[in-house]
Amino acid sequence: MKYYYEYPRPCVTVDTVVFGLDEGDLKVLLIQRAQDPFAGRWALPGGFIHMDESLEDAARRELEEESGVKLAYLEQLYTFGNVKRDPRDRVVTVAYYALVKLSAHAPHAASDASNVAWFPAADVPTLAFDHAKILETAMARLQAKVRYQPVGFELLPEKFTLTQLQKLYETVLERLLDKRNFRKKLLKMGLLEELDEIEQDVAHRAARLYRFDRKRYAHLTKKGFNFEI
Amino acid sequence: MKYYYEYPRPCVTVDTVVFGLDEGDLKVLLIQRAQDPFAGRWALPGGFIHMDESLEDAARRELEEESGVKLAYLEQLYTFGNVKRDPRDRVVTVAYYALVKLSAHAPHAASDASNVAWFPAADVPTLAFDHAKILETAMARLQAKVRYQPVGFELLPEKFTLTQLQKLYETVLERLLDKRNFRKKLLKMGLLEELDEIEQDVAHRAARLYRFDRKRYAHLTKKGFNFEI
Repeated sequence: MKYYYEYPRPCVTVDTVVFGLDEGDLKVLLIQRAQDPFAGRWALPGGFIHMDESLEDAARRELEEESGVKLAYLEQLYTFGNVKRDPRDRVVTVAYYALVKLSAHAPHAASDASNVAWFPAADVPTLAFDHAKILETAMARLQAKVRYQPVGFELLPEKFTLTQLQKLYETVLERLLDKRNFRKKLLKMGLLEELDEIEQDVAHRAARLYRFDRKRYAHLTKKGFNFEI
Repeated sequence: MKYYYEYPRPCVTVDTVVFGLDEGDLKVLLIQRAQDPFAGRWALPGGFIHMDESLEDAARRELEEESGVKLAYLEQLYTFGNVKRDPRDRVVTVAYYALVKLSAHAPHAASDASNVAWFPAADVPTLAFDHAKILETAMARLQAKVRYQPVGFELLPEKFTLTQLQKLYETVLERLLDKRNFRKKLLKMGLLEELDEIEQDVAHRAARLYRFDRKRYAHLTKKGFNFEI
């Protein structure tokens, strides 16, 4: 025992919920724990913070160490600190979440993880600790957020069809949307750039491709525009 | 030094931003620090968590100990954990915020606080630690939130005039609103109960009093209604 303190201190960990979209299915990245507690159980990637790194740096480091997934930006979700959430000790965990293009990230397990995989967010195995609660909180945050901020585009490829976009919203919000209303609302905001390209290699009639216009969004936002689906 | 650990551990604190409305002015509750670091400097009420209490319980306890203000409900704001945010040691702080009816809370300093007072949220003295950043984050959250959730009513007396309500929104959002549009939007939602009462003891023509209909809001929310100002 090398560290001495006058008052007791909790451990501080970070955990990250990484969402990815796969053919219209919302997935979440999980690792299988190699060690106790909960050895063999699936969990969110995460671990103990170092004393010389910020919370977000710790979350990025743990994510990369355990799953090989390297992310530039994470958003803080919520801090979970119930007294008995970890059987070892008092552990406060700061949870983060991120949205990624699933195809751009091929995870590989390392460090404390014996395995890593994408699971459907709506159908995960029994998770370690209170990670089911953390995942549920992240889902609720994502659902609230996609309605008021254009975060959904982070999940799609650079060029997408309106059908892919609608499917994304339907998947995240867990309900069907009226096609005509959805398109009208979106196109009216003027944030989608219609490209001179159509889908390739599809069995059905190839649809028009669009791109999200980030510059225009930044410009409109400055002028008080509010994104809303 | 009574506590020994194998790995170094940070301290965990909680800090709370309490907003109150006073005659149309948005106020924030601050305490004056009795001890170093930053002795004499104003700060948010807060302190170290105990090992056997949840984060929210710790925030409530510290708030009551230092300011005498007792609150049933706090909402978690954000966790601040930059490496050098506290000159003593590595300290991660979980920030909470609350909205109260200012008239219902007469604070009195105790514990580590030599003084306690309500300050205009837009004009506070130089704060200890990174508390200016925490206050700024709380203001931004409040501004985002009042637009989509009827949290503003927490700041008002039980019975209020439409002018008081508009003044509240103007204060929080830091901009003037069009009176006719504001009233139309609000009354259309059907969440305000018009009372058979008017203001008492006012110099100007007494205005009609209203009450926020919580039951109806809960009912509408279940049916998918979205509050929006």
